[in-house]
Amino acid sequence: MFETRLTEVQRAVQAALDASLANRPETPLTEAMRYACQGGKRLRAFLVLEGARVHGLADAQAMSAAAAIEALHAYSLVHDDMPCMDDDDLRRGQPTVHVKWDEVTAVLAGDALQTLAFELCCDPAMGPAERRIELVAALARASGVEGMVHGQALDIAAESAGRPLTLEEITALQAGKTGALIVFAAEAGAILAGADRAPLRRYAQALGLAFQIADDILDETGDEEVTGKRVGKDADAGKATFVSLLGLEGAQARAAELVHEACDALEPYGATADNLRAAARFVIARKN
Amino acid sequence: MFETRLTEVQRAVQAALDASLANRPETPLTEAMRYACQGGKRLRAFLVLEGARVHGLADAQAMSAAAAIEALHAYSLVHDDMPCMDDDDLRRGQPTVHVKWDEVTAVLAGDALQTLAFELCCDPAMGPAERRIELVAALARASGVEGMVHGQALDIAAESAGRPLTLEEITALQAGKTGALIVFAAEAGAILAGADRAPLRRYAQALGLAFQIADDILDETGDEEVTGKRVGKDADAGKATFVSLLGLEGAQARAAELVHEACDALEPYGATADNLRAAARFVIARKN
Repeated sequence: MFETRLTEVQRAVQAALDASLANRPETPLTEAMRYACQGGKRLRAFLVLEGARVHGLADAQAMSAAAAIEALHAYSLVHDDMPCMDDDDLRRGQPTVHVKWDEVTAVLAGDALQTLAFELCCDPAMGPAERRIELVAALARASGVEGMVHGQALDIAAESAGRPLTLEEITALQAGKTGALIVFAAEAGAILAGADRAPLRRYAQALGLAFQIADDILDETGDEEVTGKRVGKDADAGKATFVSLLGLEGAQARAAELVHEACDALEPYGATADNLRAAARFVIARKN
Repeated sequence: MFETRLTEVQRAVQAALDASLANRPETPLTEAMRYACQGGKRLRAFLVLEGARVHGLADAQAMSAAAAIEALHAYSLVHDDMPCMDDDDLRRGQPTVHVKWDEVTAVLAGDALQTLAFELCCDPAMGPAERRIELVAALARASGVEGMVHGQALDIAAESAGRPLTLEEITALQAGKTGALIVFAAEAGAILAGADRAPLRRYAQALGLAFQIADDILDETGDEEVTGKRVGKDADAGKATFVSLLGLEGAQARAAELVHEACDALEPYGATADNLRAAARFVIARKN
């Protein structure tokens, strides 16, 4: 059920991203943008569409928001992989954009993917202008100087701090770097429906932290061929992770606890939120 | 009159940018964003506020759009100056962001400035949600894969093309790289007023091209201490410019012709557009 729905979401959001990049100038820039939008779990798109569904909205009414969050996520990965940032040459099992093209293309493709995300939020198919402008404002807050980019800056600063981060610091870092966008994704449906965002916000805050803990566990124990990216990188770099701070078992226990918290927050939505509950369990069970 | 108004706009838009960056996390990232938002002619903000004025809108009703276009312009400069792009160490007479901080900070500050631009477009002080979402859509189109970033990519590609660009190619490049945002700036007031954009579009298309030709003339003839940036760079690099293609006098004549065209387009607005006419003349008379 969950896997079927996730596959459906993956196909639908890929089609939406492809459509948004069709009829654009045929340049290496456009090609790199399309490349960066391929693959991925599409967990954020899934959260958008399921968060919309618990409010009675059809996929079509939230599809551009789902594509927007994936375009924004793709931009952050392209820039994050650059030599001056994380210097990764492998992403989703494929060469990163600056490796396949060059650094200029990585800067510009990331820039244009961010722009595309905001363009997608304007899609009239998502309903009244009041809701869409609120979506734009929420995406800007989640991704900018108080959200994702703030977290990325904290992450880079941590590398030159000369000491490993504390649990509190790493939690704050995660809340920005990956958490803010996961919260946006989960809340988008409530925004488009004009409904109370609080329950999905609680769900997503717990889910986002569980997701990052699971990522650290995979970085410690994962298989490079399955995860599609370098493993053991953080440990090799002597960076603090949830695993180094809590131990492997402690990290696993904390992630499981957060999944419970996330599911509890979904109570107001009853059975319509079953896919969101399954997503929370998936986040800590995944192998990549 | 024009100079007084430009000074007034510079002060007001700086205050708006400062306010938008107040109460943010105090990090090097925020500091670099503030730094990148200092100075500049503020021609784009001027176009926004004067384009609003000819439609009867007060400065306060368009100020966030003026700040947005300057934040977006600042982001493009920070990324454009990076070593993998134009590799400039001087901007507005000051060290560029990647020189004063580092490349990571330049990537992230540029990213967050783009986000800030879209956040500013959401400001409720600018009126109905319908108009603001149209502003967001217009800014995304002007700055993304079909606008500014497309022009930047063409510019970089031209450097490795093995031959100088033709007049037609360089005009297309300019229409993206600097023209699209100038058109957005001039049209923003019409968008916020729900009015016909065509006259301001015609004005801005002529003005944008005149602006670029004037830039090429300054790159050939300007004084580094006055322009605040390296001069003779394009000529040294063997790049085609409007000056290399039309000759110095030919370029000056073409720019003057375009300023006439721009002023003709303002006819529907009568005397309320006098500042826009003065701006067109300023663009080709400026020394920096």
